[in-house]
Amino acid sequence: MSLSKRPYKGTRDFFPVQERLRKYIFSHMSKTAELFGYEPYDGPLLEEVELYKAKSGEELINEQIYSFTDRGDRFVAIRPEMTPTLARMIAQIHRETPKPIRFYSIPNLMRYEKPQKGRLREHWQFNVDIFGAPKRQGEFEILQIAVALMEELGATNKMFEILINDRTIVETIFKKIMGLDDKKVHKLYKIVDKSKKVSPKDLKEMIDATGISEEAKEKLHKYLAFSSFEDVLSFFEDEGQADCVKDLYDFLNLVNNSNLKNFLHYDPTIVRGLDYYTGIVFEIFDKHPENRRAICGGGSYADLLTIFNEPSVPGVGFGLGDVTLTDFLKTHQLLPDFTKPCNDLLLTFQDENAVSVCMNLATELRRKNMRVITHLESLKLKKIFPLAEKKGAGFVGMIGSKELSTNRVQIKNMKTKKQYDICIDEIDEIVKVIHEI
Amino acid sequence: MSLSKRPYKGTRDFFPVQERLRKYIFSHMSKTAELFGYEPYDGPLLEEVELYKAKSGEELINEQIYSFTDRGDRFVAIRPEMTPTLARMIAQIHRETPKPIRFYSIPNLMRYEKPQKGRLREHWQFNVDIFGAPKRQGEFEILQIAVALMEELGATNKMFEILINDRTIVETIFKKIMGLDDKKVHKLYKIVDKSKKVSPKDLKEMIDATGISEEAKEKLHKYLAFSSFEDVLSFFEDEGQADCVKDLYDFLNLVNNSNLKNFLHYDPTIVRGLDYYTGIVFEIFDKHPENRRAICGGGSYADLLTIFNEPSVPGVGFGLGDVTLTDFLKTHQLLPDFTKPCNDLLLTFQDENAVSVCMNLATELRRKNMRVITHLESLKLKKIFPLAEKKGAGFVGMIGSKELSTNRVQIKNMKTKKQYDICIDEIDEIVKVIHEI
Repeated sequence: MSLSKRPYKGTRDFFPVQERLRKYIFSHMSKTAELFGYEPYDGPLLEEVELYKAKSGEELINEQIYSFTDRGDRFVAIRPEMTPTLARMIAQIHRETPKPIRFYSIPNLMRYEKPQKGRLREHWQFNVDIFGAPKRQGEFEILQIAVALMEELGATNKMFEILINDRTIVETIFKKIMGLDDKKVHKLYKIVDKSKKVSPKDLKEMIDATGISEEAKEKLHKYLAFSSFEDVLSFFEDEGQADCVKDLYDFLNLVNNSNLKNFLHYDPTIVRGLDYYTGIVFEIFDKHPENRRAICGGGSYADLLTIFNEPSVPGVGFGLGDVTLTDFLKTHQLLPDFTKPCNDLLLTFQDENAVSVCMNLATELRRKNMRVITHLESLKLKKIFPLAEKKGAGFVGMIGSKELSTNRVQIKNMKTKKQYDICIDEIDEIVKVIHEI
Repeated sequence: MSLSKRPYKGTRDFFPVQERLRKYIFSHMSKTAELFGYEPYDGPLLEEVELYKAKSGEELINEQIYSFTDRGDRFVAIRPEMTPTLARMIAQIHRETPKPIRFYSIPNLMRYEKPQKGRLREHWQFNVDIFGAPKRQGEFEILQIAVALMEELGATNKMFEILINDRTIVETIFKKIMGLDDKKVHKLYKIVDKSKKVSPKDLKEMIDATGISEEAKEKLHKYLAFSSFEDVLSFFEDEGQADCVKDLYDFLNLVNNSNLKNFLHYDPTIVRGLDYYTGIVFEIFDKHPENRRAICGGGSYADLLTIFNEPSVPGVGFGLGDVTLTDFLKTHQLLPDFTKPCNDLLLTFQDENAVSVCMNLATELRRKNMRVITHLESLKLKKIFPLAEKKGAGFVGMIGSKELSTNRVQIKNMKTKKQYDICIDEIDEIVKVIHEI
């Protein structure tokens, strides 16, 4: 019997080239979050399914979650998203922790999806959340972090934009203005969420199928045609519902005095798929015509802690996945070359008796934080340089019979081809030569 | 209905204090592996169960694995260990990759265990492996990395030891000398593995239950009494089986000329639970009387690639878990204090109109790589210092009504209490003050 060498459907093997890319992305994520004073956290891979049933939405539970019963009869799931875990953790500590609480994490998550571009079954997601911030300032800071990360990775406002909306506005038009019940509202959310991805004909059919009145349809079409915040404001003023625009208005006041102002656009179709959002919601969108998709999504959720019988502590956060981010960076050619590793020295011997001498020299150099690869078998001279090239080594070291007898090592700079003959015991001398690239 | 705030049994919530500790450990792991020229990799969280059935051993499959059938009828498992995934990946690339291949990873793994000290259901494990190295040199380098990590974390040979054995030796005594069949050999492996953890009476009962002859029992007791390599050597010479000791002998020659020699001890009870090991096996053991347990285990496996219908490429590797390592570091008081985060500046305002000024100053400072926390609401002076203390901020910045009108900021050094009055636009001046702690 022979086993498959392929990874499980919708997941990835990360060979060093891919893993260096990922480490590059992850380190920028951590760095950015920490520049804003966010503290790292992590949680378990498994959670009880009940945690997601509460607020994540039925599509996730019914179609996408990896759930099973464990050997102790607990009904558990591999985390499909991080926010419920975070809410569970914040519920434990919010009473004794000064607000705002700022947390970030980069967990691996799984959803049972049909694998396609930008969508896999397993991905890693940068999660950044703030709890107990004054309203609008939380949303503002969270978006600042997303933008700071994108800029740190070399992106500009020519490459991406932030589309925002507010669920309060959507609730107001659906419930107060169109007069719909919760069930119809829920259906409309799903339709609005998909509206840009389907043809006008399909959209019409989906709306017709809800059975809402012609008058309601007219309002809905007006809503879907909003293309600026001014449209929103005048519509709700005419309807006598200007109150619902207040949060977004205050938020935009902050934005307009900041570096965020060149990134934000109002978009009525942004509503987010998860049930727990209650206020401002947003998505970061790639502007490139060949990769028009969301890289990041988030928003504010007021009541997630109540499922643990705790008082409301408002939260705002986003999730930004490694798959969509990598697609974005590739599309805009923002990625460095990760083909080769980066090493200081390839240390070789040409005399079998030099094994221990070579190993011990390597040990001493590593204690000085040099990245040293030893070649574990006697290596002929003509094979050394191609290998050093492949291993991204800046220098090669050679210990032949002559060097062994005189206790010396030949060190060669791979770039300048300059060669140095140094006593093996002069560790600092060797370090000096290598650092002076 | 109220949901539980506790994590799933045998798993952990990592609040910032715990997560900083873990990041400290992980960064030392990555750094150490890269000093030896090892390249990072990662694999999927899920694998088909068949992958583990091949070589991981029945205890793992029958009692410990988290397995389930996915929505597409695939029988899959959450990875309980990393080596099979790595072998699957190496099987894809070994033909075109120059040997030796050096890889490391720090994946999260799950096993269904009874949670207890040093053993949880979810843990993270530092995995380091080398493929295609000349025999003995692979084992030697792999152990060097384990020791380098321990030393990097502050441990000495007073705190830990490396116990080694060779499966070739165990196979020789069980099969050739005691003449046992595969089934009995398998049983004896399990007994030897547990022999130090049970009472002499229980050990005797376990051995009796195997039904081996009195003569075989005598050999077994002789074997279990070995306490040095010399014991091993003379025993097998007497039995005319000196060949089986050759690998270990050569390995010890390398060790005795290196920094490893003060760490290694022969131990007949080290056999490792996984079925794929074929040669030298080892465990790193805590010497502290209150924490006598293995921190790390590994060994060489010659034939793991054959399950993918590929030729044998010998591998050597170890796994070192975060739970046992943390216990070790705590026991020996080797951990720094992770209670507080580390920030450069807590930036506050005392005039609501300063919000945007404050946020924009923070943005400019972060672009200079300063870690800046902004307090998002007007903060009274007497509350600033306790908060800065809690947030580990080296400096506080204050913008009151006076500063707002004169475009200045007060910067105070939390340690020296020295105060600076600086123009808000002089970013470099502020950076200079903060860097001169």
